[in-house]
Amino acid sequence: MSFSIWGSEQEAKPLSKSLQSLVGKVVGNTTPRPAPALAEVKISECALDAAQLEALEAICGAGYVSTEREQRIPRARGKSYFDLLDWRVDQVIDVPDAVVAPKSNEQVLELLQWASKSSVAVVPFGGGTSVVGGVSPLRGRFNAVISLDLTRFDAIEDVDSISGEATLGAGMSGPQAEIALAEHGLQLGHFPQSFPYATIGGFAATRSSGQNSAGYGRFDEMVASMEVVTPQGIMTVGDAAPASAAGPDLKELFMGSEGTFGIITKVRLKVHPIPEAKAYEAFVFPDFASGVAAVRAVEQHKTGPTVIRLSDEIESATNLTSTDAIGEQDTAAPHGCLCLTMYEGTREHVASRHEETRNLLLEMGATSLGEAPVRKWEKGRFGAPVLRDALLDAGVLCETFETATTWSNVPNLKKAITAAVTEALGEGNSVALVLCHVSHVYANGCSLYFTILGAQDEAPIEQWRHAKLSILRAITEHNGTITHHHAVGTDHADFMQQEVGQLGLGILRAVKDHLDPQGVLNPGKLLP
Amino acid sequence: MSFSIWGSEQEAKPLSKSLQSLVGKVVGNTTPRPAPALAEVKISECALDAAQLEALEAICGAGYVSTEREQRIPRARGKSYFDLLDWRVDQVIDVPDAVVAPKSNEQVLELLQWASKSSVAVVPFGGGTSVVGGVSPLRGRFNAVISLDLTRFDAIEDVDSISGEATLGAGMSGPQAEIALAEHGLQLGHFPQSFPYATIGGFAATRSSGQNSAGYGRFDEMVASMEVVTPQGIMTVGDAAPASAAGPDLKELFMGSEGTFGIITKVRLKVHPIPEAKAYEAFVFPDFASGVAAVRAVEQHKTGPTVIRLSDEIESATNLTSTDAIGEQDTAAPHGCLCLTMYEGTREHVASRHEETRNLLLEMGATSLGEAPVRKWEKGRFGAPVLRDALLDAGVLCETFETATTWSNVPNLKKAITAAVTEALGEGNSVALVLCHVSHVYANGCSLYFTILGAQDEAPIEQWRHAKLSILRAITEHNGTITHHHAVGTDHADFMQQEVGQLGLGILRAVKDHLDPQGVLNPGKLLP
Repeated sequence: MSFSIWGSEQEAKPLSKSLQSLVGKVVGNTTPRPAPALAEVKISECALDAAQLEALEAICGAGYVSTEREQRIPRARGKSYFDLLDWRVDQVIDVPDAVVAPKSNEQVLELLQWASKSSVAVVPFGGGTSVVGGVSPLRGRFNAVISLDLTRFDAIEDVDSISGEATLGAGMSGPQAEIALAEHGLQLGHFPQSFPYATIGGFAATRSSGQNSAGYGRFDEMVASMEVVTPQGIMTVGDAAPASAAGPDLKELFMGSEGTFGIITKVRLKVHPIPEAKAYEAFVFPDFASGVAAVRAVEQHKTGPTVIRLSDEIESATNLTSTDAIGEQDTAAPHGCLCLTMYEGTREHVASRHEETRNLLLEMGATSLGEAPVRKWEKGRFGAPVLRDALLDAGVLCETFETATTWSNVPNLKKAITAAVTEALGEGNSVALVLCHVSHVYANGCSLYFTILGAQDEAPIEQWRHAKLSILRAITEHNGTITHHHAVGTDHADFMQQEVGQLGLGILRAVKDHLDPQGVLNPGKLLP
Repeated sequence: MSFSIWGSEQEAKPLSKSLQSLVGKVVGNTTPRPAPALAEVKISECALDAAQLEALEAICGAGYVSTEREQRIPRARGKSYFDLLDWRVDQVIDVPDAVVAPKSNEQVLELLQWASKSSVAVVPFGGGTSVVGGVSPLRGRFNAVISLDLTRFDAIEDVDSISGEATLGAGMSGPQAEIALAEHGLQLGHFPQSFPYATIGGFAATRSSGQNSAGYGRFDEMVASMEVVTPQGIMTVGDAAPASAAGPDLKELFMGSEGTFGIITKVRLKVHPIPEAKAYEAFVFPDFASGVAAVRAVEQHKTGPTVIRLSDEIESATNLTSTDAIGEQDTAAPHGCLCLTMYEGTREHVASRHEETRNLLLEMGATSLGEAPVRKWEKGRFGAPVLRDALLDAGVLCETFETATTWSNVPNLKKAITAAVTEALGEGNSVALVLCHVSHVYANGCSLYFTILGAQDEAPIEQWRHAKLSILRAITEHNGTITHHHAVGTDHADFMQQEVGQLGLGILRAVKDHLDPQGVLNPGKLLP
């Protein structure tokens, strides 16, 4: 990916007319704030001396340690609104002092032991798609910080088609993983919006959740076991067996650990045959409440869609699910809340699950819109982050965040968050457009994903920091989780105590102190 | 439950003719070894002085601290073969020095802090159904040991029918929980063989798995959050939200922790409406391999049975699934491997899932036996442990154990375990009858549950200790887990290092040292 935008320069798109018009209507005039060229970026000095760089090269091999601007700059930030603004506000960017790329667990272990001895922080780097400050090269109390790129952990190993398991290198991107599995007729089926760039290790370290989660589960549910390298040694967490009662489940301690306990290098995953058939159908509900009741019924009755999503009235009206047509009024569609469904599996399975789901949705007040809206969504489903870059260039405030709660608490939490963000941005005289959808459903609740559009003020970082604080307060005060699938990183770390309690934090610290006594692993992330 | 047998005296049954005949055929003549009456049992002295007992009463309230034989003896052992033999070999039984029954989290906290200060070990006690030595009152390095009975944590709280959640006291037994939920039209659906006596807290602390796991999942999958009391304080583990990416999942650290990190006092559970319909169908497969392939296909295609079980050839021939008729030759049934299926839910759901599953099983070589065998199994499904008492009285070696592995490794592991147990008991000139079934299925593998019948020699405890060691070695050398749903307790603790590795054990110890610095919580369990 390019350092300052989502994806590559080739993917970049100018603002569409419809999106321009939407911005004009809800945000008003804006002052462009374009991203700088790479050559213009001012960066921190390299804090490592020649002897240290030699030591790193002795561990990783010649050519796998770099202090070049072109390597360090793209690994200095993820893709949060804060990250993207950082490039635009003309400051000196703190970049990692070096980028290193070990190729084996033994090299990673040697590296971590060297870092512990040398007081150098280590930040693991996969696809760099974090939207919570997860890859920022924080030095903490250390002399230097290196970015540990997992790109050389790129192999598929030990494919077991009978059991539906395969081991994938943590550095493999979503497409690399699916291509490698497809050679065996297998699929993982994990398709978050970050899919084109994010990696297997990153999915596990952040408890990612993909758009097909109704069918295939969250990423953490796909993990059978993991290889993890800590300063104390190399370990496998998770049992060889499909389930066990032999004590606590240690892999659940490393999933979501964001590289603060160890570096995840390989992940053994539950995979399935490539589905032979697919079906699509979109529906519209008169309002969000009836739509939520219906998707809840679908999940609680296990009627079996692979994808089920429900946009609220405002998101439905802005056509957000169709990235090419955002802001366009779809005059053919009835007003209300758009619900997209998709079904995958054998032909028989798809037919029965589609019929059961459709009957239940219709019974609960839906009107069918046919398959076209779902196909349009599927085609453009990884495209939305690219649009944000053009909005940011135009000086528009644009960010997303997500939470989850129990079904009974959905109206309460949605209302509280909408009020918090509107009030926080209103204080600065911005007008906030707040869009929301449900994209991950569980028997006992669902996720709520918000997209915010507004006017940037002169200090956009402080502006959003203020809004984000209000949002997090509203979430924790109204029984939401601070993050459903974007992880904690630096952005949510201050709210971890509200999330897991003081004793919970104490346990996490005890584990970290045990595995990483010098504290070099990704300091400043996850734990406050 | 009575101290020396499964269940109550009223439930006890003499050996049926068919079972007697089976024993005669495969085991030969045996020497009766009856359990003693309670009055005959010799027990350890109470190590607590009057001041200590007064302190305990000040915490729990008058009447909730007992040093009576009738209270201490039944809390001295669980229901493993070792436990049941202990009563029969005429030794002094180490019983807890006192039984205490606090009623609130605050009382439990005070108790744990008193115990830490007084160097007294604390063993949590629910239903006492452990079959792995989980409730043995080990003193470790402490002056005394108390049994903490959770019976007063017996309330249902905060029922949320919309989200399908309810909080249950850790001391509620399976039937108490289902009755309390039924008043709200809800069901948990967790039916392990221990259901009549085992408790909600015990299910969580041991990662229990019930017979309906294909439909409702393992108990750990039903848990939304838990209240846990540690010597460091009271905490809630698990998020209020249905899913979260806010760091490691701490509830996964307490499930399976067997009271060694803290006392689980309340569990918030995912529940569902009482199913409106049920369907039953039994099948027979020509052999175990074709049966395993078929139940694997059912799970991997998610055709949706609530129960699916497959007995191997020997278990099918001994009619083990029908407790009233074990050992009887069912002349009507074709030879082969018996497969039982059951379906629950709405009428439409049951009809479609039944049809899909049945079509797939028939396609894969099954012959239908109609619904009678499943109904017989359902009626007697909690009855098998009672039979063991009569066998033990008759001097027969009878024990069960279980493991799990990936589908591709099932034949390899089953063969290795069968060889290990046959060889270990053969050495002592016993003849071992080894029965096996699959009762829990996952996309990537399944459980294997073994029942062993043989002749006791003169030192039956040492005889089974030797066999158990061989079994555990075979399991760990052939990629099984040391326990799929019976937990670790004292019986498997020595194999925890093989299960989770040295670094894994180190993490568990770090957590324990942090939460229980004096180590008073259930010493000798889980960790070697």
